[in-house]
Amino acid sequence: MLVAETKIRVRYGETDQMGYAYYGVYAQYYEVGRVEAIRQLGFSYKDVEEKGILLPVSEFSVNYKKPAFYDDELTIKTIIKEKVTGVRIPFEYEVYNQKNELLNTGKVTLICVDKKTNKPCKLPIWFDNALASFF
Amino acid sequence: MLVAETKIRVRYGETDQMGYAYYGVYAQYYEVGRVEAIRQLGFSYKDVEEKGILLPVSEFSVNYKKPAFYDDELTIKTIIKEKVTGVRIPFEYEVYNQKNELLNTGKVTLICVDKKTNKPCKLPIWFDNALASFF
Amino acid sequence: MLVAETKIRVRYGETDQMGYAYYGVYAQYYEVGRVEAIRQLGFSYKDVEEKGILLPVSEFSVNYKKPAFYDDELTIKTIIKEKVTGVRIPFEYEVYNQKNELLNTGKVTLICVDKKTNKPCKLPIWFDNALASFF
Amino acid sequence: MLVAETKIRVRYGETDQMGYAYYGVYAQYYEVGRVEAIRQLGFSYKDVEEKGILLPVSEFSVNYKKPAFYDDELTIKTIIKEKVTGVRIPFEYEVYNQKNELLNTGKVTLICVDKKTNKPCKLPIWFDNALASFF
Repeated sequence: MLVAETKIRVRYGETDQMGYAYYGVYAQYYEVGRVEAIRQLGFSYKDVEEKGILLPVSEFSVNYKKPAFYDDELTIKTIIKEKVTGVRIPFEYEVYNQKNELLNTGKVTLICVDKKTNKPCKLPIWFDNALASFF
Repeated sequence: MLVAETKIRVRYGETDQMGYAYYGVYAQYYEVGRVEAIRQLGFSYKDVEEKGILLPVSEFSVNYKKPAFYDDELTIKTIIKEKVTGVRIPFEYEVYNQKNELLNTGKVTLICVDKKTNKPCKLPIWFDNALASFF
Repeated sequence: MLVAETKIRVRYGETDQMGYAYYGVYAQYYEVGRVEAIRQLGFSYKDVEEKGILLPVSEFSVNYKKPAFYDDELTIKTIIKEKVTGVRIPFEYEVYNQKNELLNTGKVTLICVDKKTNKPCKLPIWFDNALASFF
Repeated sequence: MLVAETKIRVRYGETDQMGYAYYGVYAQYYEVGRVEAIRQLGFSYKDVEEKGILLPVSEFSVNYKKPAFYDDELTIKTIIKEKVTGVRIPFEYEVYNQKNELLNTGKVTLICVDKKTNKPCKLPIWFDNALASFF
């Protein structure tokens, strides 16, 4: 299992007039969590793109339990639960506030795409090996 | 059934370095679609808040099939399929580009909250009646 | 003089907890105004990039007089006041709400960059000619 | 003089199709810098609002020299150069990347507003005193 924890503070511009962190902002928060999870593999998401692999999102979902507020310090917990076999990488999420309350859970599935052909492809060996060491 | 169609043009600031409309931007696009769907009921989402009802999001999901690109003119199709009975209002989405290709489908569930008590509540009569006329 | 008027409705996700349209959102609104101003020249900003010209921003300023609120329908007035001679294109802005109140004024200066060399360059002939017809 | 330095990593969703951090994202980056500058005074911007003071932006400008790219780690340097006397607080900015290159400079002027009257007001004593200790 691969687990990464990232801290993010809610920006003023991310709140809405209800006083909540806007429901759409979690797409960015989950992205930041994902990037830090990948960094644990020994390379960055930037490296991945530079090596000719794009990882667009194929599925995204959030289940909201409680809102986050301005200046809250959130913990984004990003988890890859199982060994990746096909062209998809599923990330699961839990977001907590500074009182350790669970605010939402979610899921993002990335799809591995070859930049040259623009077609889905299997994870390259170097990615697959780095990931395998966690399972 | 309540169906609303809204046109949105992809802004430059909404693209990412892949050249796609960022996956998180659909939260805003769906919100705009929702607001126009509600306007068909004879009042605005703004009116709803002013009458003491908040409608935070409890669930949000997107299933991405194709990306949108800068300056694409998208059609956001927003649908309420069934009569609302409890405290939740489920909206379904289909997003098409100007070539009429289906880019993604999704779902957003709002939860009706009383602003004073900050607790979930049934839809107020005036909302429920307006909605009922579509089913 | 080149003048373009564009309507933009303030999205919920663009408000902040003060209930105002977030001060940073005008970067996007001005961009949309700019894009519509360029469309009057007979081509789109997308065409410009495809022809090998990038137009990054070199200066951006806003002078805020009154806030915009959720669901306000704004008019973005975009103006090129003088014939462009060098590598820079200066756009001036006025933003009005539906009551015709002036909310803010601003300025964005674009710099013409050759995509291949990544260096500033003079406006290409086809751009310059299209623009000249307004002065 | 009050100086605060804040680190911000460029998110993927903040890039545009030129591959740059979108020019409008600095409104948020400057806001984060401002919030950390205020925290040095012994209270948070959140406290300020809770004590009945709003600080909307009256002027905002950025002078762009070089772009930031995805995953760059930026240093936002926020400076209040002079003792505040009237109803306005001027913040100056310098943004550097991890190679210590100056990417842009800017300025944001906040205006002190009494939440109850919604009118400009002088800085409250507790704010003024905390600030004075830096000059």
